[in-house]
Amino acid sequence: MNDALKATLAPTLKSWIESANDPASDFPIQNLPFGIFSDAVDERPRAGAAIGEWIVDLAALEGERLIDAQGAFAAPRLNPFIALGRDTWRAVRIALSGLLARDTPTLRDDAALRRRVLVPRKDATMHLPVDIPGYTDFYSSKEHATNVGSMFRDPKNALLPNWSELPVGYNGRASSVVVSGTPVRRPNGQIKLPDEERPIFGACRKLDIELETGFIVGRGNALGEPIACEEAEAHIFGMVLLNDWSARDIQQWEYVPLGPFNSKGFATTISPWIVTLDALEPFRTATPEQQPEPLPYLRHAGNHAFDIELEVALRAEGASRATIISRTNFKLMYWSMAQQLAHHTVSGCNTRVGDLMGSGTISGPTADSCGSLLESTWNGQRPLKLEDGGERAFLLDGDEITLRGWCQGEGYRVGFGECVGSILPAR
Amino acid sequence: MNDALKATLAPTLKSWIESANDPASDFPIQNLPFGIFSDAVDERPRAGAAIGEWIVDLAALEGERLIDAQGAFAAPRLNPFIALGRDTWRAVRIALSGLLARDTPTLRDDAALRRRVLVPRKDATMHLPVDIPGYTDFYSSKEHATNVGSMFRDPKNALLPNWSELPVGYNGRASSVVVSGTPVRRPNGQIKLPDEERPIFGACRKLDIELETGFIVGRGNALGEPIACEEAEAHIFGMVLLNDWSARDIQQWEYVPLGPFNSKGFATTISPWIVTLDALEPFRTATPEQQPEPLPYLRHAGNHAFDIELEVALRAEGASRATIISRTNFKLMYWSMAQQLAHHTVSGCNTRVGDLMGSGTISGPTADSCGSLLESTWNGQRPLKLEDGGERAFLLDGDEITLRGWCQGEGYRVGFGECVGSILPAR
Repeated sequence: MNDALKATLAPTLKSWIESANDPASDFPIQNLPFGIFSDAVDERPRAGAAIGEWIVDLAALEGERLIDAQGAFAAPRLNPFIALGRDTWRAVRIALSGLLARDTPTLRDDAALRRRVLVPRKDATMHLPVDIPGYTDFYSSKEHATNVGSMFRDPKNALLPNWSELPVGYNGRASSVVVSGTPVRRPNGQIKLPDEERPIFGACRKLDIELETGFIVGRGNALGEPIACEEAEAHIFGMVLLNDWSARDIQQWEYVPLGPFNSKGFATTISPWIVTLDALEPFRTATPEQQPEPLPYLRHAGNHAFDIELEVALRAEGASRATIISRTNFKLMYWSMAQQLAHHTVSGCNTRVGDLMGSGTISGPTADSCGSLLESTWNGQRPLKLEDGGERAFLLDGDEITLRGWCQGEGYRVGFGECVGSILPAR
Repeated sequence: MNDALKATLAPTLKSWIESANDPASDFPIQNLPFGIFSDAVDERPRAGAAIGEWIVDLAALEGERLIDAQGAFAAPRLNPFIALGRDTWRAVRIALSGLLARDTPTLRDDAALRRRVLVPRKDATMHLPVDIPGYTDFYSSKEHATNVGSMFRDPKNALLPNWSELPVGYNGRASSVVVSGTPVRRPNGQIKLPDEERPIFGACRKLDIELETGFIVGRGNALGEPIACEEAEAHIFGMVLLNDWSARDIQQWEYVPLGPFNSKGFATTISPWIVTLDALEPFRTATPEQQPEPLPYLRHAGNHAFDIELEVALRAEGASRATIISRTNFKLMYWSMAQQLAHHTVSGCNTRVGDLMGSGTISGPTADSCGSLLESTWNGQRPLKLEDGGERAFLLDGDEITLRGWCQGEGYRVGFGECVGSILPAR
């Protein structure tokens, strides 16, 4: 890591934007995630970086010639910026850190300039940050795969033999990936009830969440040219929170033999801010031990997990309080993002800038650390108690789900903000 | 159907381009498929229509103000044209038919104009005709699903219970869809040999084809707003041939429980010319009887299959002759394209202009009508004899596969041209 990058990550670094120095803020100067926003003054979606309670309007900042991204920040998605490459991501982040650091007067002491380049986060509308050419979802939590395998197949052989040899994944539906805040309509579909001979058609009765993270491909690979595991992280721009909404009853009927389809394709929500891999660097940690040792193309030395605390909150319609229904950590994931990307491309499959790769549901070993209601309620058999009364087996109309994630530093945290969705009734 | 459209489909219609009147040409005046091409004179990819041995340069034709597509034909993909909507597709096709009809002097009698708007097909390079935001592959041949189910699961219960209730499908990998003529590199991957405890890593040993057609979505639907089965064909722009290359050994190890992934994602080849649904209209026919009767959302009155003859040719490297290894027909498919699209969107899943939907492998009831080597050689146990000697269980390096498809009219045929790919050795 070069010195300029290292300096942006120092725990002692402070900003002249005071709200960024709040230890509970997701967006301290050490973070500087990228997103796409618009506001009432300028309705054009454009690139921004989050800092405390503010957004730095990167298009405006480039207009002032204080950063350089070849005009890419005026685009309505981050793809053109990301396509400029890692050197540019880094240079922009380092320049931003410099401009926002407590001792830098450029913006701090120029109210007119600040007015041109800062927008209050509360006044902004966030948009999908990237065009997503492809969305792949993995299945890399051992606890999750074991729980699901126990429930739907055989508790004695819950993990299928391929699971510990490769990061199992499948292609998801990119068209229905939406940004946090977009309401999610309960899907209709075919449901096979146990006591009926034929399926019925109707609204999903087992609507569920999946707590995941996702990473955004920052540099693709050409068809036929795999990405080596040791090189894979250099292809990753950053990470988001991801809620892979799932219709369990539709899924159970449709998924053999080709995998989930309508049960997942109706919506996937991601958080609006992409936290760069650079900002996550201080929170790198070891992946769980892998037994058996992976085949050579899946090996990488060093630490490739990230210590990201995660929680899921459920608030019923009209409820005064939300209930935290799960707490877990991304570092529990068996397969790393680098291994996922190496495996995805080892066949020669190409990836493209903006591709989204979901981690798979992140579950810990206990009921209160499960990433889905399917697991924490054991397919609805043990409903969760909600704080303001009531209980939940699966989601009801009006329920609002909020995913949160953050890396805890000393006196600050590098957070993802929120990934929110609430349920509209079926049509 | 309006009269102007009907007139373009008359079997007696002839063109002043004599090669289009050859009964064996895939591209008579009744067809007029759309594609993207470039040539040595003008290397910019742009829209064209095939007619006999020629391509009409639609960008040039619009430049001459002889057709109108709001400039969309100058784009390097057809998406902007397709997005203009069905009325425009029809109007352009009708105008083209008029210009190319034997009795129309505009081009026929103006050599300088012809020189500006006609390019010999043999001198053109064809490109991927559309940007493909999403690729979905169905599994709608009863014979194929029965064969595969017999081989890998249980011959007595070869068809899973959901198969006859819904068009089973899964999300494919859009990034690796390539145009006919692109070489296909044999993929590497994990293979589990029966007598080994752990998988090995290496080149696919059971490389296969899948004979399919695909349709291109011409009008998408908004998230949460399903496409009704009766309306679905109005959302389809046209059809292509599709070869869903498959690594059977990789597939067998990886596919449980989430479906095929690396075994398919390394390449999918489509033919360059999109034959419009309008051009296929005279070849509409009945779908096979569906028992049990589909649920209401999958019902449509009338004829929704199309009588498209299909064949697969295999030519070994250096061989003088190709062998036809399969002959079958698209009309055998159990689920119609309309039913596939209605099912895909019934959950609320949105589709977009340019989405590609594969039919699934098209197999008939006999070994010589199977759409994959897996089936015709019964997993390699009964190799096929090739015409110039030698035999094939699965594909060898250097093998060239050509898919062909056409609708046979009286004295003419509406064809798809060829969908070709040859195998490069693994890296």
